[in-house]
Amino acid sequence: MIDTIKVTIWNEYRHEIKNEAVRKLYPDGMHKVIADFLGASEDIQTCTATLDEPEHGLTEDVLNNTDVLIWWGHIAHNEVDEKIVDRVQQRILAGMGLIVLHSGHFAKIFKRMLGTNCSLRWREIAEKERLWNLEPGHPITDGIGDYIELPNTEMYGERFDIPTPDKLIFVSWFEGGEVFRSGCCWERGHGRIFYFRPGHETYPIFYNEEIRKVITNAVRWAKPRVNQGTEKGHHIVDPIENITEKHVDFGSTGVEQT
Amino acid sequence: MIDTIKVTIWNEYRHEIKNEAVRKLYPDGMHKVIADFLGASEDIQTCTATLDEPEHGLTEDVLNNTDVLIWWGHIAHNEVDEKIVDRVQQRILAGMGLIVLHSGHFAKIFKRMLGTNCSLRWREIAEKERLWNLEPGHPITDGIGDYIELPNTEMYGERFDIPTPDKLIFVSWFEGGEVFRSGCCWERGHGRIFYFRPGHETYPIFYNEEIRKVITNAVRWAKPRVNQGTEKGHHIVDPIENITEKHVDFGSTGVEQT
Amino acid sequence: MIDTIKVTIWNEYRHEIKNEAVRKLYPDGMHKVIADFLGASEDIQTCTATLDEPEHGLTEDVLNNTDVLIWWGHIAHNEVDEKIVDRVQQRILAGMGLIVLHSGHFAKIFKRMLGTNCSLRWREIAEKERLWNLEPGHPITDGIGDYIELPNTEMYGERFDIPTPDKLIFVSWFEGGEVFRSGCCWERGHGRIFYFRPGHETYPIFYNEEIRKVITNAVRWAKPRVNQGTEKGHHIVDPIENITEKHVDFGSTGVEQT
Amino acid sequence: MIDTIKVTIWNEYRHEIKNEAVRKLYPDGMHKVIADFLGASEDIQTCTATLDEPEHGLTEDVLNNTDVLIWWGHIAHNEVDEKIVDRVQQRILAGMGLIVLHSGHFAKIFKRMLGTNCSLRWREIAEKERLWNLEPGHPITDGIGDYIELPNTEMYGERFDIPTPDKLIFVSWFEGGEVFRSGCCWERGHGRIFYFRPGHETYPIFYNEEIRKVITNAVRWAKPRVNQGTEKGHHIVDPIENITEKHVDFGSTGVEQT
Repeated sequence: MIDTIKVTIWNEYRHEIKNEAVRKLYPDGMHKVIADFLGASEDIQTCTATLDEPEHGLTEDVLNNTDVLIWWGHIAHNEVDEKIVDRVQQRILAGMGLIVLHSGHFAKIFKRMLGTNCSLRWREIAEKERLWNLEPGHPITDGIGDYIELPNTEMYGERFDIPTPDKLIFVSWFEGGEVFRSGCCWERGHGRIFYFRPGHETYPIFYNEEIRKVITNAVRWAKPRVNQGTEKGHHIVDPIENITEKHVDFGSTGVEQT
Repeated sequence: MIDTIKVTIWNEYRHEIKNEAVRKLYPDGMHKVIADFLGASEDIQTCTATLDEPEHGLTEDVLNNTDVLIWWGHIAHNEVDEKIVDRVQQRILAGMGLIVLHSGHFAKIFKRMLGTNCSLRWREIAEKERLWNLEPGHPITDGIGDYIELPNTEMYGERFDIPTPDKLIFVSWFEGGEVFRSGCCWERGHGRIFYFRPGHETYPIFYNEEIRKVITNAVRWAKPRVNQGTEKGHHIVDPIENITEKHVDFGSTGVEQT
Repeated sequence: MIDTIKVTIWNEYRHEIKNEAVRKLYPDGMHKVIADFLGASEDIQTCTATLDEPEHGLTEDVLNNTDVLIWWGHIAHNEVDEKIVDRVQQRILAGMGLIVLHSGHFAKIFKRMLGTNCSLRWREIAEKERLWNLEPGHPITDGIGDYIELPNTEMYGERFDIPTPDKLIFVSWFEGGEVFRSGCCWERGHGRIFYFRPGHETYPIFYNEEIRKVITNAVRWAKPRVNQGTEKGHHIVDPIENITEKHVDFGSTGVEQT
Repeated sequence: MIDTIKVTIWNEYRHEIKNEAVRKLYPDGMHKVIADFLGASEDIQTCTATLDEPEHGLTEDVLNNTDVLIWWGHIAHNEVDEKIVDRVQQRILAGMGLIVLHSGHFAKIFKRMLGTNCSLRWREIAEKERLWNLEPGHPITDGIGDYIELPNTEMYGERFDIPTPDKLIFVSWFEGGEVFRSGCCWERGHGRIFYFRPGHETYPIFYNEEIRKVITNAVRWAKPRVNQGTEKGHHIVDPIENITEKHVDFGSTGVEQT
């Protein structure tokens, strides 16, 4: 028996509707293409959610049935409701995995989890990118060689304003002269977070077999490892050792204590 | 010539007003006591700010003139305006230091910077605490021996829901049987953050010479190290290498790319 | 089909021979007791190796057939041959897991992997220890509650001279007043390392069900994740981009370059 | 009054003697050029040491008077005496800073401190390198802009077999298509370690003003922060709390304990 990983692919789903070039590449949306290649693995079961659905498709019920959430957003980050961001954050802290793709670096949920601005440099001239594999022993790079080469990509360059990753998996080389931390792992609460740079909407990135391999690996890495809850509140507890409350008179003022 | 560090001590300042026992210890507020001992160092210049001042005392002007912000809050975290939290966050990412004391673990700004719930166990029976010094070579423990002993404290116990600290400075032992990560360092953006557990309002913690020493050391550690800005937005940049835009026809649909 | 994890339990095996009290607890050696409880899991296959065997029982062949090596040593660290330490180090860098128990903190292989002295404080008066679980979502603590309590242990106290762990799993509270980082994870090369404090030879620690659970979990966590080699030497490589060697005359001396 | 930082520059000093091209660039050795530019700062006092001096120039007395040790080696790593490596390691653990340059990645002392093989890819065709500044707020990059460009360098490429740096300062882009973690910080014991990639002997790297700036900054960053000792041995200590030794009979065998 295989433990099935339940993956929800969230997509802003605006470019595909507004922009013909994007629609040609992803007629039913990037989320559909991602769901299809992930769903081809027998241990992965997918569903999708988009910005314009009620609650952005991320109801309590959907999230409670999600092991790993994949996030793609770009031009409508600000339209994501803070309450949904709160909800997603709590699920991650309780153990759900989060995989943020490409322009999702500016997503509210990504900045919420990391605490930084997540800003970077960019340029779009269809240049070559080469993602170097820094961790060939890590599950996310299983089946990936020394590097992945993408002939045409948008460039993202450092400084990427993120906390030091727990593990840095990929560093990109760009034809135009920049570098970028393209694959980064963090843990927050009981949940795992992976940022993966590729995925620009005007290039057929999600049809690349190596990119698909990395995302599939990342899903398996990010799944909840142990069934855990998390706590938002204080807990008052009794002492374990046999001690009793002390009653101390600190004097009339603290100043006299010194 | 000495470079002066400008420290703003922020205090919720409610317990001291409402509770006679606290007022006895800190008649003018904990912020006043902290400002006094810090200000006694010739390299430190202090000012204070409290919740009930306009903009909680943290105007743009005040923050722009703050090198290190110290934060004490407890019963009114929810009254802190999100806009002020945004402002403080941006200043930290730009290099301002943040020192969070005791019950400030639930402050909005602390949770904002770390992305986690920062929950913990607690108990208040005036028990003994011993803060073990794990990093005797670190500037924050300069002048501190193997441990600091506090005869009467509120207990905070693990699990403390925080991201793994960049550096763990103190771990507390409690008479009642618990342990706690009591001194933790992180960097976010260009700013440094130090959480320090002691500081309960009903005990004369801020009159303890070793606690004062640690907070003074932490101010010096957390000051902006290099004058830097931070960026919230994208930057579009030209290629450095001599390459030109490519024009590629990806075909009528992405599906055909595979 | 279950992937079997091949575990080699290495024991110095001197205390059990010399000391009657230890022999009563572990008549065939601690390694035998550890091998027995690990071997009871159907996904784990064990063998043992001891100091006084040829090559300390750690031949090339044994190591090449080991997924996870468990290490217990105390009074004879210096008798371990440097060449065997070299060999074990290379296997760890290539992906083999290493679990170091208790007094193994001073083992050559542990100091070799970490680069520090691994010194600590200690005391042996059969006092109570409580190992607090800081990472309830981590695979090593699967099935473990808030803490593990051991009624009689040797005390190990901070400062433990180790590099900051990648993940700190357990912190111990001791009856006599100390704390200790009792469960620590690192990665070196492609291999995973776990240090676990309990395991003093004069107490029946390895009969404790929770200790057994942690060691069993750690074996599963530390197994090689992806089949990888490691490289000791340089690799000369051709450029990927289409560039050719440049021939530059830097002038007669560097001084003229300035 | 300025606290002077005492820097010892260690150089293998073989290339300069054997190879005319190198001698033209560095007639008195690279150590001399480094000592000269560092010594021009009024807060830095330098001396040099080379492989062929007695004890490699690193006597107890020299090391005890060194705050920061700079290391350049390449073709004679194996000639460095293990006892001197032991001695340097102990000084680092006690607080001395270590700066390792370029081909020093294979120095015994660097591998000793890190525990890994420190292997990498390389190529020498005088190609262009661009070191991207990932930490513009860090003291090591004070005065450095977005990147440093070197027109002619030897290439070093990933995977660099090192433990995850505590802080990654520079990532290099190479004309031929590779990337490299070129500026890495670690702490071991009480000492700080900085690896800096540039410094190939056949290029006038140590005449470059930005490279000089980084090395000077690194010296200030790596100096001992607090006067500390380190401990190689165990310490037996008395309990702090008022408890006495327990005497427990664990029965005739451990098996009966279960």
